Amino acid sequence: MRLDREAPVGVFDSGIGGLTVAREIMRNLPSEKIVYFGDTARVPYGSKSKDTVLRYSRQIIRFLETENVKAIVVACNTASAFALSEIQKEMNLPIIGVIEAGARVAAETTMNKKVGVIGTEGTIHSGIHERWLKSLDQEITVYGKPCPLFVPLVEEGWLKDPVTEEIAERYLRELLEKEVDTLILGCTHYPLLRSLIQKVVGPEVKLVNPAYETALELKKLLSQENLLSTGRGQEEFPYRFYVSDLAEKFRKFADSILPYDVEKTKKIDIEKY
Amino acid sequence: MRLDREAPVGVFDSGIGGLTVAREIMRNLPSEKIVYFGDTARVPYGSKSKDTVLRYSRQIIRFLETENVKAIVVACNTASAFALSEIQKEMNLPIIGVIEAGARVAAETTMNKKVGVIGTEGTIHSGIHERWLKSLDQEITVYGKPCPLFVPLVEEGWLKDPVTEEIAERYLRELLEKEVDTLILGCTHYPLLRSLIQKVVGPEVKLVNPAYETALELKKLLSQENLLSTGRGQEEFPYRFYVSDLAEKFRKFADSILPYDVEKTKKIDIEKY
Repeated sequence: MRLDREAPVGVFDSGIGGLTVAREIMRNLPSEKIVYFGDTARVPYGSKSKDTVLRYSRQIIRFLETENVKAIVVACNTASAFALSEIQKEMNLPIIGVIEAGARVAAETTMNKKVGVIGTEGTIHSGIHERWLKSLDQEITVYGKPCPLFVPLVEEGWLKDPVTEEIAERYLRELLEKEVDTLILGCTHYPLLRSLIQKVVGPEVKLVNPAYETALELKKLLSQENLLSTGRGQEEFPYRFYVSDLAEKFRKFADSILPYDVEKTKKIDIEKY
Repeated sequence: MRLDREAPVGVFDSGIGGLTVAREIMRNLPSEKIVYFGDTARVPYGSKSKDTVLRYSRQIIRFLETENVKAIVVACNTASAFALSEIQKEMNLPIIGVIEAGARVAAETTMNKKVGVIGTEGTIHSGIHERWLKSLDQEITVYGKPCPLFVPLVEEGWLKDPVTEEIAERYLRELLEKEVDTLILGCTHYPLLRSLIQKVVGPEVKLVNPAYETALELKKLLSQENLLSTGRGQEEFPYRFYVSDLAEKFRKFADSILPYDVEKTKKIDIEKY
């Protein structure tokens, strides 16, 4: 199969969180078209099993293929943890997740070799960050902590709220006791809590937001494969948004966090794919 | 179609919450067999659209029909709000939800005609409690308040936690300002927060837990239809539990809240129905 360099990049997440990754791709690869899918009918993925997340990811990829994407970014940590290695084997397209890039930056950043990771239950219990970090530097010790209330707090919009801060203090206390000097935001919702998390952990702890690193990794990959867009056709149809439910609610949220007016979001029946 | 009085009752919910309803059926109708389905792969329903919840409810009913149930209890407020009236038209089986019974008790309980309702966004925005209460007593004023963090707080197990109390105070403040004297727990998870909510609203406010009333309504319905079980075969196979994901996690939770040892829970692929 010959891929078209002017084709869009597919980006997917369980819901809205992956927009923090799409945003970095828009900023860093402004010539690329993007087709985004948010699985808002079946969000969240973080409390689901590997089998279920893998099945959902395969359905989404079949949908993205109907949009003729040239590459796929799995902009969801849980799907990256549970499904990426399987679907990479099954696909002819280049496909990347958000975990590897974050692990690489964390390994480069830590001075005391103590790295914390926060994410959903699924992501943390998978142990995938630890495997990547250990493969990069055996001396690194990884401390993981699931933070299941962060996603609903973000969706409630309590981004700078004392309650959110109290919950963050409780979740992060044990990582601070372990004296981590680097903390991976291992869920694409968490960059929206970035300033609150930084306040709780203090200025000495470096936060790693894998969204930015993933955009750079995508650039490198497209360049290697000779798939970087020239920008042709980009102005007419830069970004398309699809969801499995509540298109208007998604559109409003996307509009609020993207540096661009989101005019339309289309709902599709993902279970048919 | 002739229904078998010894057949089981089907009970479904988006996840674990409906177990508070199943528990009341076990207590109040001990001769009945129960087939419970929890849609743990697609939980929560409260933030999803009417179309999606209706589609999911139809799939679950098709599954319960394969288990030859004689009646169905929609033990989920969001599904009761969005899907009950539609599926009642489509089915030959007796089918009840959790909203009508709760509304009836609240109408009988309130003295000052001011009733509060708490639930998911979907349930509250549907306005269904208000319609039922107004049909029972036009003078009643209904104040609804969505409490989207309560479900994840229950699932985190923070049932008597200061953080949960702080969040409850914030959510319930405006209902207290309206001077409601009766509060419907309009989500099947909320009875697990009952003592905390009672503490926050004070002893003057009566809490209505529709689970108990729904069990009594089921008893009346089965009796009218001559479908009350004699108890034959009940001892050998009283209760069956099915879920769409994470069967073992569900089993442990069910075991902790039911007055009975839950030995087995089976995972099925609900999207096939």
